[in-house]
Amino acid sequence: MKNFEYDKSRVINFSDAVFSIAMTLLVLEIAIPSARQVKTDGTWSVLSNLIPNFVGFLVSFFVIALYWIAHLRLMKYVSSIPSKLLWLNILLLLFVVLLPFSTAFYSGGFVHTGPFVFYSLNLAIIGIFNYLMIRYVSKKEGVALGLDTITAKWLKWRALNVVYVWIFAAICAFTFFWVSRFAFVLIFIIQPFIDRRYRKKLNS
Amino acid sequence: MKNFEYDKSRVINFSDAVFSIAMTLLVLEIAIPSARQVKTDGTWSVLSNLIPNFVGFLVSFFVIALYWIAHLRLMKYVSSIPSKLLWLNILLLLFVVLLPFSTAFYSGGFVHTGPFVFYSLNLAIIGIFNYLMIRYVSKKEGVALGLDTITAKWLKWRALNVVYVWIFAAICAFTFFWVSRFAFVLIFIIQPFIDRRYRKKLNS
Amino acid sequence: MKNFEYDKSRVINFSDAVFSIAMTLLVLEIAIPSARQVKTDGTWSVLSNLIPNFVGFLVSFFVIALYWIAHLRLMKYVSSIPSKLLWLNILLLLFVVLLPFSTAFYSGGFVHTGPFVFYSLNLAIIGIFNYLMIRYVSKKEGVALGLDTITAKWLKWRALNVVYVWIFAAICAFTFFWVSRFAFVLIFIIQPFIDRRYRKKLNS
Amino acid sequence: MKNFEYDKSRVINFSDAVFSIAMTLLVLEIAIPSARQVKTDGTWSVLSNLIPNFVGFLVSFFVIALYWIAHLRLMKYVSSIPSKLLWLNILLLLFVVLLPFSTAFYSGGFVHTGPFVFYSLNLAIIGIFNYLMIRYVSKKEGVALGLDTITAKWLKWRALNVVYVWIFAAICAFTFFWVSRFAFVLIFIIQPFIDRRYRKKLNS
Repeated sequence: MKNFEYDKSRVINFSDAVFSIAMTLLVLEIAIPSARQVKTDGTWSVLSNLIPNFVGFLVSFFVIALYWIAHLRLMKYVSSIPSKLLWLNILLLLFVVLLPFSTAFYSGGFVHTGPFVFYSLNLAIIGIFNYLMIRYVSKKEGVALGLDTITAKWLKWRALNVVYVWIFAAICAFTFFWVSRFAFVLIFIIQPFIDRRYRKKLNS
Repeated sequence: MKNFEYDKSRVINFSDAVFSIAMTLLVLEIAIPSARQVKTDGTWSVLSNLIPNFVGFLVSFFVIALYWIAHLRLMKYVSSIPSKLLWLNILLLLFVVLLPFSTAFYSGGFVHTGPFVFYSLNLAIIGIFNYLMIRYVSKKEGVALGLDTITAKWLKWRALNVVYVWIFAAICAFTFFWVSRFAFVLIFIIQPFIDRRYRKKLNS
Repeated sequence: MKNFEYDKSRVINFSDAVFSIAMTLLVLEIAIPSARQVKTDGTWSVLSNLIPNFVGFLVSFFVIALYWIAHLRLMKYVSSIPSKLLWLNILLLLFVVLLPFSTAFYSGGFVHTGPFVFYSLNLAIIGIFNYLMIRYVSKKEGVALGLDTITAKWLKWRALNVVYVWIFAAICAFTFFWVSRFAFVLIFIIQPFIDRRYRKKLNS
Repeated sequence: MKNFEYDKSRVINFSDAVFSIAMTLLVLEIAIPSARQVKTDGTWSVLSNLIPNFVGFLVSFFVIALYWIAHLRLMKYVSSIPSKLLWLNILLLLFVVLLPFSTAFYSGGFVHTGPFVFYSLNLAIIGIFNYLMIRYVSKKEGVALGLDTITAKWLKWRALNVVYVWIFAAICAFTFFWVSRFAFVLIFIIQPFIDRRYRKKLNS
């Protein structure tokens, strides 16, 4: 008997729902300034107090978007979902679901090291499960369809890029405040290089 | 090698999820009157205190609905989703996600100028990304399918209508309180004229 | 030129998302008893204080479920979605979205008349838009597919049943406390009679 | 006339949405530590105070995931959805929706018996509806497609396993604190035995 295989489209729909809900819940963690605060301090001052919250919101939003895009790319090559892939996917979603908490924890304690390390590690762990899913799909026979070795490596490097940057950010946090807070920019700087390299390889 | 193209139906499902969650979260920002308030002030008085919240809720609900309809109309003509279109879509969704915050910020500080300007600009920015998506789809070869020049212009004008009205509302806010608060009505007044004009053009 | 027609499956997915989110958000309005309350008053006492909240939660959950089932039934016969049907659907969803607020307002002020009337009218209005959608679909040529006159009448009576019961509940609230609070039971008592009658008609 | 049958894909999408929203809302019930707490007590101390919340979050997340997987497996064999199955599904979702409340109630009053019993029974009830759905599908003629007797029994035992463990946990709670809190581990210990047994049966 073959092992049980799950309905791919349902797993995708479910994952998309979790991604989109987590992204939307991020905004609930930004406390809404009261009319009194606006009256006494002015809109600018009130909004500038919220800068850590907006930074957290934006970074989390874009990083979830990146992970969602990675999911989109990987699933295009997946032809069937065995139990192990399903559970890797569920574990990935677990840490996506945790992100609104981590983001609010970090935004609230912007100047502290601990919350930021917690936040970075949360993001790194999502990346690790993303990587494990790609590895599983590319290794396991009969799961992928039309995924050549070069594209598999490309996807893996895109995944590892995010993981490395967040681990780097977590380590930096202990000594270099601003470097750690803006380390995520590296993801978007390094990725085009990875993309260019593998586009070339695929064309040759 | 062709550039990577994303699964259209997943991108649509994901966008629909974000639109629907943002619309539903709007209601969470209306504070629920306590039994004590109802007892001392009466239901009418308690509800009339919430009028700014209901106004904000209704305006945001209908404007998100309009943007969702624009998305429905545009995506009907899209045959493939390249990376740039995906990112324009994600940026549009970012500002849709921010809307429950802006709405609550504006409803809470109904009489203040700053929160309303913030709210108007949030809505205008969604409109701008809506416009940029339409422009990209109509310009880029191989992305649209069956989108004639007149319909493309029609969609663009519907998009710009909303953008102009919200920028107008933001500017009015500094001097004309009530004009700015009800400027959104213009959207629904102007749109039928745009529709009529382009229906005629398409029929001739 | 034909009028623009919307993608039926997207409209359905979007509506399902709104229905499901509104149903799930209902639970957020039940305040969670603190450990201290549990310690001093005991679990039973703490939970029995929440009975109004559970009643509100259950009633709203099942009434939204009924409306969702009505939507399921109607949409089975819809072959295309013109602009007017889309807007009726959006208005229906608006009042579905409002329901977590109404439910919490009513649960919080269980003994007061005003909040219950507000809640009943909210539910009645959803029912009215449900009815208007059915009427539009059955009247407008080219929108329905395979919807015979008897089934159309059946759907309409199922819709009106809910509307009448909630208006009855709202009126009762001014004089008969308990009758109004449990009037919703009538929906589930009357519906089988409607079903039986129209099943007979369809079979003959 | 045949009884009315519901659109299977809509029922599935709706259920997936409810499952995913309930799983994501779990995180909202973890209170976010303030910057002041982080400053005075340190990150470790602040996070360790949240251990009951994280335990509740994790257990609920994985148990909902299990129920979702059971739903995935069952629905694969369902070819049509009659009214009774739809209502069993809605009742199952009702208790899934209640779970964020139960989880927060239990996490907040971790040391108390009552909240934990409430939580265990909530999870057991979901399991019971899961079981009733499987029984209905396997019994009722014309509902299942390709569901042999052995697989039906397999699904039933997987469902009953979860029900029994949570009832066991609820009973233990009155005398054995730690046994009850970690009884859920039994689910994951027993399930592989059930799986192995029925895989063998299916192969022979």
